[in-house]
Amino acid sequence: MTARKSKKTNLPSEIVCTEGKHSLFENAIRKLPIPVSSVFVGDDGKITPAAFEETESAFVCKEQDQTEKVFPKTMAKTRNVVLRGTRQTAPKAVKGKRVAVLFSGGPAAGGHNVLVGLKAVLGKDNTLLGVRRGPRGLLKGDLFEVKASQLKEVVNTGGFGFLGTDRTKIKTQSQFEQVKETVLKHRLDGIIIVGGDDSNTNAAFIAEYLEKESIPCSVIGIPKTIDGDMAAGKNLPISFGYDTATKIYSELVGNLAEDAASAVKYWHFVKLMGRTASKITLEVALQTKPAIALISEEIAEKNISLTQLVDDIVRIITLRRLKGINHGVILIPEGLVEFIPEISALIQELNKVLAEYERDIKDLPTLKNKLEFIYPRLTPYSAQLMAALPDDIEEMLILDRDDHGNVKVSQIETERLLIEKIRYKASEVKRHTEKYFGEGEGKIPATPEQLQQLQAMSLSTQSHFLGYEGRSGKPTTFDAAFAFALGLTAGSLVLAGKTGYMAAVTDFDKGGTILALPLTGLITCELRKGQEEMVIEKSLVTTSSPSFKAFAANREKWALDDLFSSPGPIQHWGPASRQIPITVALDQGYADYKTFNLGEEKTVDFED
Amino acid sequence: MTARKSKKTNLPSEIVCTEGKHSLFENAIRKLPIPVSSVFVGDDGKITPAAFEETESAFVCKEQDQTEKVFPKTMAKTRNVVLRGTRQTAPKAVKGKRVAVLFSGGPAAGGHNVLVGLKAVLGKDNTLLGVRRGPRGLLKGDLFEVKASQLKEVVNTGGFGFLGTDRTKIKTQSQFEQVKETVLKHRLDGIIIVGGDDSNTNAAFIAEYLEKESIPCSVIGIPKTIDGDMAAGKNLPISFGYDTATKIYSELVGNLAEDAASAVKYWHFVKLMGRTASKITLEVALQTKPAIALISEEIAEKNISLTQLVDDIVRIITLRRLKGINHGVILIPEGLVEFIPEISALIQELNKVLAEYERDIKDLPTLKNKLEFIYPRLTPYSAQLMAALPDDIEEMLILDRDDHGNVKVSQIETERLLIEKIRYKASEVKRHTEKYFGEGEGKIPATPEQLQQLQAMSLSTQSHFLGYEGRSGKPTTFDAAFAFALGLTAGSLVLAGKTGYMAAVTDFDKGGTILALPLTGLITCELRKGQEEMVIEKSLVTTSSPSFKAFAANREKWALDDLFSSPGPIQHWGPASRQIPITVALDQGYADYKTFNLGEEKTVDFED
Repeated sequence: MTARKSKKTNLPSEIVCTEGKHSLFENAIRKLPIPVSSVFVGDDGKITPAAFEETESAFVCKEQDQTEKVFPKTMAKTRNVVLRGTRQTAPKAVKGKRVAVLFSGGPAAGGHNVLVGLKAVLGKDNTLLGVRRGPRGLLKGDLFEVKASQLKEVVNTGGFGFLGTDRTKIKTQSQFEQVKETVLKHRLDGIIIVGGDDSNTNAAFIAEYLEKESIPCSVIGIPKTIDGDMAAGKNLPISFGYDTATKIYSELVGNLAEDAASAVKYWHFVKLMGRTASKITLEVALQTKPAIALISEEIAEKNISLTQLVDDIVRIITLRRLKGINHGVILIPEGLVEFIPEISALIQELNKVLAEYERDIKDLPTLKNKLEFIYPRLTPYSAQLMAALPDDIEEMLILDRDDHGNVKVSQIETERLLIEKIRYKASEVKRHTEKYFGEGEGKIPATPEQLQQLQAMSLSTQSHFLGYEGRSGKPTTFDAAFAFALGLTAGSLVLAGKTGYMAAVTDFDKGGTILALPLTGLITCELRKGQEEMVIEKSLVTTSSPSFKAFAANREKWALDDLFSSPGPIQHWGPASRQIPITVALDQGYADYKTFNLGEEKTVDFED
Repeated sequence: MTARKSKKTNLPSEIVCTEGKHSLFENAIRKLPIPVSSVFVGDDGKITPAAFEETESAFVCKEQDQTEKVFPKTMAKTRNVVLRGTRQTAPKAVKGKRVAVLFSGGPAAGGHNVLVGLKAVLGKDNTLLGVRRGPRGLLKGDLFEVKASQLKEVVNTGGFGFLGTDRTKIKTQSQFEQVKETVLKHRLDGIIIVGGDDSNTNAAFIAEYLEKESIPCSVIGIPKTIDGDMAAGKNLPISFGYDTATKIYSELVGNLAEDAASAVKYWHFVKLMGRTASKITLEVALQTKPAIALISEEIAEKNISLTQLVDDIVRIITLRRLKGINHGVILIPEGLVEFIPEISALIQELNKVLAEYERDIKDLPTLKNKLEFIYPRLTPYSAQLMAALPDDIEEMLILDRDDHGNVKVSQIETERLLIEKIRYKASEVKRHTEKYFGEGEGKIPATPEQLQQLQAMSLSTQSHFLGYEGRSGKPTTFDAAFAFALGLTAGSLVLAGKTGYMAAVTDFDKGGTILALPLTGLITCELRKGQEEMVIEKSLVTTSSPSFKAFAANREKWALDDLFSSPGPIQHWGPASRQIPITVALDQGYADYKTFNLGEEKTVDFED
């Protein structure tokens, strides 16, 4: 080989050019066009605000009286009727409106495109203000004017970094007064709150408060959450962020399934983010076809005990092992532990004991003393369950408690608890083959060779938690378009003087239908920390849904024949770049999930 | 909104069609063309084996005498001269050759394309055999004929699932005899070993053994490892799998950086796979520009103590906090702990004590007894360090030992150790501001307002380990092309009757130069478990390399100005889909890293 001539290269300086969110990829996605629903396209081809008309559909509150009592002003105005966005043929120019927007709660992919949508629809005659660091910034009045040049930097990028976010809840009288102060000080005509169920509940309360105070400021919510629990049937198939997060997790789960099949020895236990609902797990399961995926809602509905759950999992592991497949992926929803009936009962008992005997338990010096005190005060069944938990989980249940003195359920390392119990049971199955194999009810038929092979197998486990890496990924082309449409919708609602609505988009398969959902129509009474509260109901997995049924109909086959798939990394170009979540396509009755249609692609222009 | 007419959809059955590695993405990437170096393109445009000629370049062994003693036969044949692949204008058809291929060690993206390359170059006149489950399968003679139809299913897909892999080392006389038996039984003319440094060392020994036994069977290695430590300067810039793994990790680290900046509260500590070298961490750092990235080799070279390291990290954290940036990403190479001088010294002392007093320590009943026995036998400095370690790390050091009685260094949760020490130090900095802030040497200038802001800040940490999800990802377009070229090269070498070489490709920026590197030229003497062994030298990060210098020149600015970037998910289509690792481009002196050139894209056809 001849020696390479030393070349003068400017490569190191090129690398410096990619600093600060200017990777090759980020530079390229900023230039991608975005689909725009025809409702927002004026005769001149430019972005134009939509008008809104009432539909025939109105929400019926679960607690109509209670809701009317808490939200008299907004209920009187909206009558819980769903609005539909329509194209304005000769729009009356609205000028001089000042609209503030804030992010609330955990980040989700597409947030920046909400801002771009807002800016585009408000146009140069109105002002978009950004609220720094979420609801707390709104209380403090920490606002700044958002410039078009700034948004050109963040279009199609991930995260909530442009504004920041936080988790402050706005619910006290003094907080409402602070909001009022901010509205008056900054002369706001609208507040857009981008958030999940709690944040949109906040929006409903602020809307009602400002109406009551006769302050003409629209409050509009935008449905955001990766968890997928912010949805409303045909009116709102899903929130933005879910598609990106589930696709990122699906990429990684697909890779782990490949890894398991390559190294031919690992069982990868993967806990997936999603506080309550198992919607993320269901989507990832439909995408990747893993050996096992647990759905909390099914476990609660069927009242499956921890023992039964472990037995079911070990049965699948054993059936695979008999076929020589001693590896696989097991998906576990983050919220699982609260849905297992006996653990849920134990936690309730513990919370009661810990509250009732707070001082005694605090005074007892050692963990052993505390346990000695607590055990006799539990029911025998719960005591037995707790005694069988790994030591550090037991310790955590007693010592780590939240601000209200309750057990920190979310801190329980469910995947580790399951691994320990599964190891124990799998070992028993190996040690007592006569009990588990052969002819007869509940027994598994197996040849002597299979059993010999089984004896030689050990259970190598690896546990993973997929969460944060999915919240701030670059939005998929779907989330980018969906979030942009939500921004256009929310901005249009403010310009039309509407308040107390959530922006919504549906019909992802036929150009996007633009809706405004009355927030009070989504609200229900929920027991929180022992008290009834008016909150927006979380949308959970139902076992009667087409998406769950598709999963349930195939899971055994996926397990036994090791039929996993790898959906691969999210593509922004090429044939696989226009997908929507499989669960959404199934539950909405779309013909396919390969190609969404949210309007024609446009290079969106916006100016100050 | 009008009710949607219930549509008959075949969506559930479409989902079934994507089972078993037939996701939309997998179906699409199977159809992607692959670049092919002109060396392998015959006059008819079809894949043709390369010929090989000697170059002027020969390896000089570090221990020439020793190597010649261990590998007399292969050394005599190859004379450590590097071969270059050349295009055969009128190739003599080679027929009837039987070539076996196996994967060894952890999976890496591109493995399946090695098989495709082999099949394509062997053509229908020769036979490709797959070895099941790695070296162990070779010993057992577990081989099967690989059909073109099977490879059409795995082209461009990730993992080693088609054959499986394992970590068996082949080094004893009886193992060599088993290999001989397999070669004779299956009438093999060649064995291709796809693996890292250990596996290619195996290849060198097997080549020598078969030569000695006068068995005419070529043994060729293929450089595989995600770690990036299997490289040989200009002759072999990198192994296959590194590009994909680092790009997957970079995607996730970029997302975590976005997440940190969005939630504006988290410090994400990310441990990155890579047993010894920090090459993965260096590439991910150049891709993502994180707040902090630790490079083990630098720490060892500069003899940076744990205390100093923690102080340096807390200094960066503090400087960021003074600017209001209380979040960020800290990258930690998996192998770090062995490079920290004082921990490395402690481990050596412990290994000595544990070996010398094995029986005493075993007999002592409790951990406390054992510690009481061990502490006086350490140097005071090591004893102090061990006493300051978190309890469970201390326990692990004493109780968990490998088959040779040594401390299991890889099990030490470095990121957790660092988090604990950093928390402690960061709290001290907050509590003793007079000591750390103000004018004077080593002190940080700060205004009273800044210090007040600092007091209000807490350190929220999240730890992550990125490893398995990067080993079996879909190969990047670069790894797909590179691995394919390595397969073509290895197949050509067998057809040319060469043995004891490693297939290599270089000049990624100008069509790809095909090389064969004599394995004995890569081998050196290394102290392993107290004994000298002939092994292939690991390629580590050097602080004089252009890639390290580019990192070192910019890291302070990246930290203080929070200049992170998100390289995004790996693209297989579009403007960002043809990149190579930045470290490779820098160290090879390429003009850029945006677009590789490994030849013209072809739809590769292969038949049985």
